[in-house]
Amino acid sequence: MTERLALKTDPSETTREIRINENLICGGQTLWITAGPCAVEGLTQLEAVTQALLRHGVTSLRGGAFKPRTSPYSFQGMAEEGLAMLDAMRKAHGVCVVTEVMAISQIEAIAAHADVLQVGSRNMQNFDLLKALGKINKPVLLKRGLSATLDEFLWSAEYILAGGNPNVILCERGIRSYDPETRNVLDLGGVAVLKEKSPLPVIVDPSHAAGRRDIIPALVRAAIAVGADGIILEIHPNPAKSVSDANQALSFDHFAEVMADVNTMASAMKRSVAAPVS
Amino acid sequence: MTERLALKTDPSETTREIRINENLICGGQTLWITAGPCAVEGLTQLEAVTQALLRHGVTSLRGGAFKPRTSPYSFQGMAEEGLAMLDAMRKAHGVCVVTEVMAISQIEAIAAHADVLQVGSRNMQNFDLLKALGKINKPVLLKRGLSATLDEFLWSAEYILAGGNPNVILCERGIRSYDPETRNVLDLGGVAVLKEKSPLPVIVDPSHAAGRRDIIPALVRAAIAVGADGIILEIHPNPAKSVSDANQALSFDHFAEVMADVNTMASAMKRSVAAPVS
Amino acid sequence: MTERLALKTDPSETTREIRINENLICGGQTLWITAGPCAVEGLTQLEAVTQALLRHGVTSLRGGAFKPRTSPYSFQGMAEEGLAMLDAMRKAHGVCVVTEVMAISQIEAIAAHADVLQVGSRNMQNFDLLKALGKINKPVLLKRGLSATLDEFLWSAEYILAGGNPNVILCERGIRSYDPETRNVLDLGGVAVLKEKSPLPVIVDPSHAAGRRDIIPALVRAAIAVGADGIILEIHPNPAKSVSDANQALSFDHFAEVMADVNTMASAMKRSVAAPVS
Amino acid sequence: MTERLALKTDPSETTREIRINENLICGGQTLWITAGPCAVEGLTQLEAVTQALLRHGVTSLRGGAFKPRTSPYSFQGMAEEGLAMLDAMRKAHGVCVVTEVMAISQIEAIAAHADVLQVGSRNMQNFDLLKALGKINKPVLLKRGLSATLDEFLWSAEYILAGGNPNVILCERGIRSYDPETRNVLDLGGVAVLKEKSPLPVIVDPSHAAGRRDIIPALVRAAIAVGADGIILEIHPNPAKSVSDANQALSFDHFAEVMADVNTMASAMKRSVAAPVS
Repeated sequence: MTERLALKTDPSETTREIRINENLICGGQTLWITAGPCAVEGLTQLEAVTQALLRHGVTSLRGGAFKPRTSPYSFQGMAEEGLAMLDAMRKAHGVCVVTEVMAISQIEAIAAHADVLQVGSRNMQNFDLLKALGKINKPVLLKRGLSATLDEFLWSAEYILAGGNPNVILCERGIRSYDPETRNVLDLGGVAVLKEKSPLPVIVDPSHAAGRRDIIPALVRAAIAVGADGIILEIHPNPAKSVSDANQALSFDHFAEVMADVNTMASAMKRSVAAPVS
Repeated sequence: MTERLALKTDPSETTREIRINENLICGGQTLWITAGPCAVEGLTQLEAVTQALLRHGVTSLRGGAFKPRTSPYSFQGMAEEGLAMLDAMRKAHGVCVVTEVMAISQIEAIAAHADVLQVGSRNMQNFDLLKALGKINKPVLLKRGLSATLDEFLWSAEYILAGGNPNVILCERGIRSYDPETRNVLDLGGVAVLKEKSPLPVIVDPSHAAGRRDIIPALVRAAIAVGADGIILEIHPNPAKSVSDANQALSFDHFAEVMADVNTMASAMKRSVAAPVS
Repeated sequence: MTERLALKTDPSETTREIRINENLICGGQTLWITAGPCAVEGLTQLEAVTQALLRHGVTSLRGGAFKPRTSPYSFQGMAEEGLAMLDAMRKAHGVCVVTEVMAISQIEAIAAHADVLQVGSRNMQNFDLLKALGKINKPVLLKRGLSATLDEFLWSAEYILAGGNPNVILCERGIRSYDPETRNVLDLGGVAVLKEKSPLPVIVDPSHAAGRRDIIPALVRAAIAVGADGIILEIHPNPAKSVSDANQALSFDHFAEVMADVNTMASAMKRSVAAPVS
Repeated sequence: MTERLALKTDPSETTREIRINENLICGGQTLWITAGPCAVEGLTQLEAVTQALLRHGVTSLRGGAFKPRTSPYSFQGMAEEGLAMLDAMRKAHGVCVVTEVMAISQIEAIAAHADVLQVGSRNMQNFDLLKALGKINKPVLLKRGLSATLDEFLWSAEYILAGGNPNVILCERGIRSYDPETRNVLDLGGVAVLKEKSPLPVIVDPSHAAGRRDIIPALVRAAIAVGADGIILEIHPNPAKSVSDANQALSFDHFAEVMADVNTMASAMKRSVAAPVS
């Protein structure tokens, strides 16, 4: 039996600190907060979002350039053009960029323009993609599959780790269930189990779990309280006009409220958040 | 269309304060914490548990006298004898008592000896039982069914409310899912939705959700952070010897740790907990 | 360890033949087909349905007098009056009657007027009701809970068997899942497993599983092909006017088509169906 | 709104006949039966399996050369070497070959050696792979994702159809649920719905649904009775020694029994099966 790299070797092992860029670490005492639009829609949008982030001391921007969409007729993302816009934010404002990779052929371009490569739920068991991501050294944000067990999730991380890339961040984003009231069920017990079993940092995506913005502040608080190492959020200058996920994106005002909750909870958990810009 | 009593009439409606006994309210600013064994096993057990509760300022004792068990050959509870033991704690220590009612024929005896009548998950849609509980005025703690939607849950509360009993406390205790890692999945997003939709207080049972004691502290913190009005916990003088639910019961030392978490989180949420006895 | 009565003592044990009335057996070579309205609505309705059954040689009438409804404001059934109407069909046409029991207090009246007492999904773990049904000797049709495991299902049967009543018929009626396309997911693999593990007959309710009438013929065929011992169906003289379950009830013409399928599949499975009246 | 190619334009539209090779069609009056090992293990194994198929008139061989495995340390398939072995069977015995494609880079080689390219459950929403498969003209066997809705399943087919390849065969293989008794729950109601909504042929994989061989004959019968256009089965010369899926593979004797059931049911459904070799 090969020793599993995604499992702690002993229960006291601490969480691995994954370096995102020169200023940011995920897995340490400071929570890693990243936010941005579901999809990159243009430079004006990204500029507005980035300014909103910086007002709260958040220096990590997420946004999709390649978008996995249920329908082939839906907007599929701005692709390379979107990547270039994300990179422009990175260069202009020093923010780190998180964006999704859907295919092996995109890895090189994304790695050149982004700091963290996200693997979406639908690709959690796209093993050829995972193997290819094991060959790079940039951090990979691996989202839990829609109905993946925690063990399958950790095995998918293992594909990346076994390939030689130790920089894997796990993300719980809700699992499929039967109640139409929320888009998915956020499995915070699963986060607690992952924190016990694995040395990898675990962050939480309340936006995809909820599918509705009203309960996002509550889920953010709960995620930090359960011990998550970070939060990934959807925000948009004008949520009603978002090309995708309009119901779950937060406005900037709503984001400000959430950040107040983040600070309160971080403090209760004796963790820090990067200081807001005065 | 009849107006639904379990729904807020307008979004700003505050949570209903349900009076448990002369000292306790559920649904107010103070969190309602109740703990105790899965099953009443004897006076010595109850006395030890009650002392442990009181050391932390907890004055609400839960314990099952009538036990719903998957197998007819499992211990079915101490029945009336167990009720009398619970009542003895009530009289000796002034604690409130929460215990499960499984049949209409038990209501009278339980209402005479207990302060809160609990309806278990398996009986959430035992409509004749719910109707009968609408005719008493003691508080009813209604647990969500194993795979009930939130709307079905609120409709079951409606049976009690429509019968004339306004004192219903909702309890999220985990929903059935596919991952063997935890017994159930605690649906804290569901708690947030219930708090938005209903004026009824909502408490959380992390013990049945987890089915394992290691993640209970994390779930307790998350439940309070999400906005729950209280917590119901399984504790036992010697968990390994518990006649039921041995894997999820907390020892008194473990309970002390959880109460420290409760206090930290209550404080972050600007809520209070009854002061521990010095 | 007590021997479980709901399990075969050895794999070659044949299915138990449960006598329904002087003419009907469930669990033998002949399939047990029962059909009728979700709820008894009046004598005219029952008379029309019974005539429709008899035209196809079906001599078993199902219909609810006591109705478990999600909302307390929905029609709750005609109760004792409905029972009397069912009994009138029994006396006038010699049909057997299947109807639901929701509470211990109803058992005596139902047992006096009906041949088979049905326990609905919501009450599968209403253990006090199951214990009381163990004390009668009429057949009990036990429906699988909405998300009960097969093992929990067999344990619930055990409550009745252990009480002294060997006449338990199991019914698979769909389990809760995530796809809104059908009301539930019919677990025919579960039926196959039950047939392997238990000597009790197993019937299938495609109406509640589907929640839509278009796929009922296909599910009826599949249920017989998988080895079910019978089928329970919702039919109505005018489905669009049914007070409940309107989308899944079959018209008499649709029922005639289904019975043609029943006969074809029974014949492929070398089982018989009572001969249609010429 | 673009018209969806995976949906019938009117309810009376018949099932599309997909040509597999010069002798075989899926979607017509003749059922398409394909069987073989989970993984190609060597020429001796494939030769034995192919002989077993031919004895029953089955001329379609399935077998994995590229294997998606939960763990990176499990056997990952014989890759190109396995493909060559499958092709050897094709050339020696005229059988059609079905094998899984996991990555865009494998398409060319697989299309050169196989007749049908299978997309596994884990890749049902690997959209870049689906787009690439829209550019070839060989039939694609698309398996339903582990917890995909029927609508998501049809949208994934749409990716292939929209790319220009009309030859898509849908495969129901069980969805994830909570009962450990079976590996997955076979959603035959879903098959009935797909047959109503889509012109694409639908086949059923009872092996992965069950995860245990004892109930496979029952599921095969039910699948044909519900209206499936074909069956895909795991068989192995020595199931206990299979490198993967050992519990669900059928021995040749067991396969012979299943084929008897296939013939009985096909005949009840007025469909044919290629005649067994005398």
